[in-house]
Amino acid sequence: MILCDVGNTSVDLFYAGKRTKLSAEDFDPATIYDTVYFASVNAVFNERVRDYTNWYNVRKFIDWDKYYPTMGIDRIMVCEAIDNGVIVDAGSAVTVDVMQNALYQGGFISLGLRAAREAYARVSPALDVSFNFEVDLAKMAKNTPDALTVGFLAPLICRIKELGKPIYLTGGDAVLLSRYLPEATVDEDLIFAGMKKLIEKGSKC
Amino acid sequence: MILCDVGNTSVDLFYAGKRTKLSAEDFDPATIYDTVYFASVNAVFNERVRDYTNWYNVRKFIDWDKYYPTMGIDRIMVCEAIDNGVIVDAGSAVTVDVMQNALYQGGFISLGLRAAREAYARVSPALDVSFNFEVDLAKMAKNTPDALTVGFLAPLICRIKELGKPIYLTGGDAVLLSRYLPEATVDEDLIFAGMKKLIEKGSKC
Repeated sequence: MILCDVGNTSVDLFYAGKRTKLSAEDFDPATIYDTVYFASVNAVFNERVRDYTNWYNVRKFIDWDKYYPTMGIDRIMVCEAIDNGVIVDAGSAVTVDVMQNALYQGGFISLGLRAAREAYARVSPALDVSFNFEVDLAKMAKNTPDALTVGFLAPLICRIKELGKPIYLTGGDAVLLSRYLPEATVDEDLIFAGMKKLIEKGSKC
Repeated sequence: MILCDVGNTSVDLFYAGKRTKLSAEDFDPATIYDTVYFASVNAVFNERVRDYTNWYNVRKFIDWDKYYPTMGIDRIMVCEAIDNGVIVDAGSAVTVDVMQNALYQGGFISLGLRAAREAYARVSPALDVSFNFEVDLAKMAKNTPDALTVGFLAPLICRIKELGKPIYLTGGDAVLLSRYLPEATVDEDLIFAGMKKLIEKGSKC
């Protein structure tokens, strides 16, 4: 069994604990004979795999009463991985969700680090500077890079900490955010853990 | 005496407790005979008023040892207005600064509400939705507009509250933010109060 996370630009395959990232555009689903369970945000890709009988969309395993209709499938998958805790998925957006006794409590969406930096640059050329990840978030800043880094990260970290524990970090900027949340568990494969759990649950029904 | 706040697109005049906003491009400084003290972020405008002997740039009154060289002049002005407290100026960016015994303690810069909304829309078409300012920031969201509003505002409000009191709100979105900070004082003329205080201090020296 292969697990597959399909984004708008890439296809992330997970097999025997290892990940392989490929371009979504170039990827040919016919090259895989094994059973594939996939979570996809890519409508074009979904069309392409529709007629392959070994490709299963995990969407149909989701209990939609637990979540909301416009909620991203990748976000639901990381939530499915955790029964109790705060799940932070730091990618192009930072999604923060709360699970309690395997029930979804709701969440929120912040900008991703890159999106935030680009948005500052658009506000003013004076704010077109890099973040300084060495900054102490507890201190008030006295220069522009620190003022932006503290301005974006201190509020976000403050709110995440307020939500309680345990905290799970995943996504491309998980390691970076873990500097400010040392008590959090970093698990870059959380989406696949969620998919696996959901499939196993589904097959028991 | 007229006080004047010069932005990139507009000139905001303050005289006898009343404000008049004009286009920076069309504004002719020769139309004013009274003494004008101005705070400006507009280099083109500064050139235009350079030879008018009744126009004084408040920049020269600032004690730069208190602040940092790249700090916006408008941000310094609102800080000068307050001896003790947290000053939130909610415009194209949201600047948050702390003053203690008339000394600058540092601050941070968040995105303005409009800049944040536009940045979400750039991340994904699914996030191109309006904020819902009726939302309860204490609750986790279960739909996209609420998830974005809570995602942007709850962290910011959380961090501002952590900084202590009193809180002063100014700038175009001051009234909007005051919904979430009911204990804060809204003062839309804070920049002019700061300019006035700084000029009076300067003239005493």
